[in-house]
Amino acid sequence: MAKSHTKSKKSGKKSKKSGSSDAAAASLRPADLIERLQVREGFTLSGVDPRSTPGFAGGKSDSVAVGATASAELSALQEQFFASSRFGDTRKILLILQGMDGSGKGGIVRHVVGAVDPQGVEHVAFKAPTPAELKHDFLWRIRRRVPGPGLIGVFDRSHYEDVLIGRVHELAPAAEIDERYDLINRFEQELVDDGTTVIKVMLHISADEQKARLFERLNRPDKYWKYNPGDIDERKLWPAYQDAFQTVFERTSTDAAPWFVVPADRKWYARLAAQQLLLRALSDLELTWPPAHFDVPAERARLGTT
Amino acid sequence: MAKSHTKSKKSGKKSKKSGSSDAAAASLRPADLIERLQVREGFTLSGVDPRSTPGFAGGKSDSVAVGATASAELSALQEQFFASSRFGDTRKILLILQGMDGSGKGGIVRHVVGAVDPQGVEHVAFKAPTPAELKHDFLWRIRRRVPGPGLIGVFDRSHYEDVLIGRVHELAPAAEIDERYDLINRFEQELVDDGTTVIKVMLHISADEQKARLFERLNRPDKYWKYNPGDIDERKLWPAYQDAFQTVFERTSTDAAPWFVVPADRKWYARLAAQQLLLRALSDLELTWPPAHFDVPAERARLGTT
Repeated sequence: MAKSHTKSKKSGKKSKKSGSSDAAAASLRPADLIERLQVREGFTLSGVDPRSTPGFAGGKSDSVAVGATASAELSALQEQFFASSRFGDTRKILLILQGMDGSGKGGIVRHVVGAVDPQGVEHVAFKAPTPAELKHDFLWRIRRRVPGPGLIGVFDRSHYEDVLIGRVHELAPAAEIDERYDLINRFEQELVDDGTTVIKVMLHISADEQKARLFERLNRPDKYWKYNPGDIDERKLWPAYQDAFQTVFERTSTDAAPWFVVPADRKWYARLAAQQLLLRALSDLELTWPPAHFDVPAERARLGTT
Repeated sequence: MAKSHTKSKKSGKKSKKSGSSDAAAASLRPADLIERLQVREGFTLSGVDPRSTPGFAGGKSDSVAVGATASAELSALQEQFFASSRFGDTRKILLILQGMDGSGKGGIVRHVVGAVDPQGVEHVAFKAPTPAELKHDFLWRIRRRVPGPGLIGVFDRSHYEDVLIGRVHELAPAAEIDERYDLINRFEQELVDDGTTVIKVMLHISADEQKARLFERLNRPDKYWKYNPGDIDERKLWPAYQDAFQTVFERTSTDAAPWFVVPADRKWYARLAAQQLLLRALSDLELTWPPAHFDVPAERARLGTT
């Protein structure tokens, strides 16, 4: 069994203040990071240390410079991606974020996705389905919100809720839930065949870290709005949710649309990792600026006379 | 006749490098800036110098510090706005951007709106209507995209195209176009009555500045994608467009939803001004953090035992 990153209480070493962004950059090994986060055959969620920082040898302070560089790269590549879509490139990117309450999904949107032009982003936060949505199959509302060409779609929660909370609370018959994994795989394969890079990220926090984050919400009036008493009820079902996630990984981490489990007790690492995953997806598109679709000298002449 | 800001070739003084952000902040007079940009009775577009910087005594370098401070404020207020909507506050903000090609609408989205959490923004770029959209009245597609509670909607072009390009190219009978101004006023009044702050911004560039920006698009392969030969055809109709804008201001700058004409030959000023308008709109909502909607000590106790 190949564990992608192993548990170690010592792995998250205290960040050293690094004055040099070169030194910080040197602490990142992007290919290694991505490789180590990807869920493969034999993966176990319980084997992942939520405080680890796979592929990154630095600390929080080092992550600042690395993050700033990556943000600038992301922003530049996103513009090329968007530009290409104006001239026939129909590719899309879809980032799916899952994780327990307080795992930092919103932070990824704000801090990672927030670095790119809002014109190029379609963000959807999926809540409990409405009565109207429940009249349709579980993928219906999802299909309606997949990103169009040149766009980065971001799903904060997704169709995976239907095999997470759906499974834990037995919101549908077991056989129906069981069937959903295959339906999801087929759906995602369709997206991929249609030119979508699907990036599935699970933000993995420990139960202790969740407790600390929920306590913070209860202790800061500017965080009350994020607190929901129902979160405690879900928290009591922690092992059932971890099992449900494990099943998700076993059944839906495909070659076409693999899962990445990101240790997320350290918010700065989770953000850096999500950023690298997005960056890799954009780089892999091998984008170029669209060539002129007009006669440049002729247009210059036309403009010169107006 | 009260001109809101008068023409002066000298008004845009060379920026001085200012080491102090206090000094930079002192150069901004927000209330004065907003007051001077607002279109009022007797306004004439031809009286506005596109290179002027009303309400800001500094230069480009000063604008950096001012902009950074305002971005942080915007981001903080937007979070309160979003949070409030989770607990019954149904207010919305809608920023409408209009301007000639190359006037910098996209730059406002990227640099000003881009500072806030993507979760709180709904951006729509309205293009030429599709055949399906043309089957409906001109406000149909607009109504479908107005922002919901707690969201900042951004329209890059809008229903005003139907009285701008619509008027210049006579895309509908004159009587029908004439009727649209009243329909727009009624529609916007409805939005306001429904709790929407409507901010209408026209980015005002000079014909010379447009020429320079279009030339840049023709001279940089990374800008080709933004160039459209049709822009030259529209450019030839410059005076007709200026007239159409003047009519828009006369007919649709209402107390409920006033227009702001932002001199935009200096991109940094246009961004700073749009930022101040958004900031004022958010400040005027007098937001507070939603109070706890649960028993704080009881929840702390519940969490302590899980």
